[in-house]
Order: sequence, then C-alpha cells, then structure tokens
Amino acid sequence: MLELYYGIGTCAVASHIALEEAGAQYKAHRVDMKANQQNSPEYLAINPKGRVPALVTDQGVLTETPAILAYIAQIFPKANLAPLSDPFAFGQVQAFNSYLCSGVHISHSHGGRGARWATEDSSLQDMKRKVPENMRAGIAMIEQNMLRGPWVMGDAYTVCDPYLFTVGTWAKGDGVDLDAFPKVAAHRERMKQRPAVQRVMDQQKA
Amino acid sequence: MLELYYGIGTCAVASHIALEEAGAQYKAHRVDMKANQQNSPEYLAINPKGRVPALVTDQGVLTETPAILAYIAQIFPKANLAPLSDPFAFGQVQAFNSYLCSGVHISHSHGGRGARWATEDSSLQDMKRKVPENMRAGIAMIEQNMLRGPWVMGDAYTVCDPYLFTVGTWAKGDGVDLDAFPKVAAHRERMKQRPAVQRVMDQQKA
Repeated sequence: MLELYYGIGTCAVASHIALEEAGAQYKAHRVDMKANQQNSPEYLAINPKGRVPALVTDQGVLTETPAILAYIAQIFPKANLAPLSDPFAFGQVQAFNSYLCSGVHISHSHGGRGARWATEDSSLQDMKRKVPENMRAGIAMIEQNMLRGPWVMGDAYTVCDPYLFTVGTWAKGDGVDLDAFPKVAAHRERMKQRPAVQRVMDQQKA
Repeated sequence: MLELYYGIGTCAVASHIALEEAGAQYKAHRVDMKANQQNSPEYLAINPKGRVPALVTDQGVLTETPAILAYIAQIFPKANLAPLSDPFAFGQVQAFNSYLCSGVHISHSHGGRGARWATEDSSLQDMKRKVPENMRAGIAMIEQNMLRGPWVMGDAYTVCDPYLFTVGTWAKGDGVDLDAFPKVAAHRERMKQRPAVQRVMDQQKA
C-alpha cells in the first residue's frame, strides 16, 4: 500500500489531493514540521533530503512533488489525471508543475525559509519584503499564460490542478490578493467544490 | 523540426545534450544572455517567462528542463533515455531532475541572480557567500544518496546524466571542488568521453 508523508500547509497537499482523486488506497502520515520532525533520523531514513512529500511505494520511496504527481497519474490511468499517451501534452503538464516547484514555490520559501540561502537577519528581512512582488508575478504568469480554464490544462482535470490549488493556498499569507487574478481565483473556488479536495482539507484541519 | 533556444553555460546544455544523444533533427538558437536577449519581445513571444531552455515543437513550445528532458526521452524511445514503461523508475528519473531544478540550480542562482529574491547589496553579498556551502550540500546529497554509477540511475544512461553534467559545470565557479566527490567527478569524466557531450561543448565554445 502507498504511504504519503506530508506536512500541514506544505506542497505535499498536492500529492495528497491527487491520491484522493485517483481513488488510491494509501496511508497518510503527518510529519510535524514545527517540531522539525522532517530532520529526525527516522524521517531522514525515508527521505534523506529532510523534506515532504515522500511517497513510499512497494518499489521504494519517491520524492519531489512533480515526480510524485506524474507517478500517481501513471499508476492510476483510469483516473485520467494526465495526458499519458501524448508526449507534448504530458510535457505541458510537467512544465507547469516544474514552474510551480522551481519558480513559485521558491518565491514563497524566501518568506519563511530564507535562512537556506542567506545568514544575516537584514538579508532575511529583505527577502521577506520581496515575497509579495515575486508571488504576484508568478501568479500573474499563470493567470495570463498558463491557466486555460476551467482547469489548468483546459477541459481535462490533471495533476496540475491540485498543485496550483496548493500553491494558491499560500497567496494570502504571502501578501497577494487572489481577487486580482480572476481566472486563478475561479479555479480555486472550483477546486473547493471537489470532494477529494474537501477530504484532504478536512484532514489538514484534524 | 525541433528548435532549441539555449544560453551559454545555462541549464539548457542538458536539453541540448539530450537532443544529440537522441539523434534528433533540430536547430539550436543561441540566446545572448549577456545582452538580456531572453527578455526581448521576440524571445518573450516564445517563452513569456524569459528563461532558457525553450523547445519549439510542431505542437507548440515546451519550457522547463525536466519537462523538456522527459519529452525528448518520450519522442525518441529508441534512444532509451528514460525507463518509460516503468512508472516507479521513471518517477526516480523525474525526482532526480526535479531536485536539480528546484534545489541545486536554485542554490547556484543565488550567486549571480540573487536580485530575483532580494534588493539590498548586503543581501546579495550574503547570498553569494552561502553559495559554496549550499552547492556542496547538494552535490554531497547526490554523491551519497542518488548517483548509483556508472550513470545516475545505474547501468542505464538516462536524461538525468546530461542534467547532472550541466549542473556540475557550475561547481568550480561556485567554490566547490568536485575532487571531494569521487562518484560525481568520475561521472563527469565519463560524460566528457561521450561524442554527444563533446559536440555540444564544442558548440558552446563556438
């Protein structure tokens, strides 16, 4: 059985929703990020990078959100979570997810995790001040050039959708008003109506 | 015909090598990063994100290195550049490439592109000072937990290999001596023997 390691409010929410959408049998294990459990010896034995998500499978452990999302789409093909038989369309799914992980997520991380990249308090404050601008630019790029509607890739719901929803959850705390981005905001409301999303959000609160 | 937009010394080298390994018919267009050509109206019409690589296909434009690498592997299956029929093994390829794009590449970018995330000169200097430590940690993670040898995924050469080679090219300039990482250093020498790599490195110099 699949086992997902996740942290509250992290990008692991995307993989969690994808598992629910796929109708997967899985166990979810919460990693207590506030207690730095992701760097405990027990968790580092699962993911030596000390990050969530990690997906334990019968064949071994997978990490990194874009990899886990594509894997879930591939092993549950009946759920139609990615255009698996069309390399270009699949490439677009991957490009979107890669932009979120190496672009928008990194912009977000400079708010709370700036110490990864600088040491002095003045630098960390400087980084924090720039977060709203960078998050706004990333969401504007999605609004103007990526999100086709009703779902990210158009008529078909894919693994891009829970990932965008997850990143959008950070917007308000990062000083971005999603009302300025009507397509992204409407996508968010559409996502909240999905039972899979509701089940995961309930688990996040529990 | 495929058309690759690349910049000298950028992560686009990985996609360039993959195209050569695949025996693809393609045109390569150099984007003059020093002249900020990636932000010219002409290039932004190709990739509104203003980054390289971009791969123009008959179906449209693909961006983001992990997406382009998987696409090349998929459309040239005879080149055996990824374990396409094994979702878990393919997921491992993707996880490796995702770690490079959202981890090691980001560490590198804080040396020369710190202004993306902070404004004050003291912050940019602080970020630059931390680059060697972060690059060393990323390469140590690859050395200890990822690179199986002789290739990243073991006996099979995959699209992970040109990507690791490309990121390794940055190590010296980022203050990291690869001699401290014997598996990564040996992988690098092995890569330099490949004709596809030599052809791309010659084009980079030209």
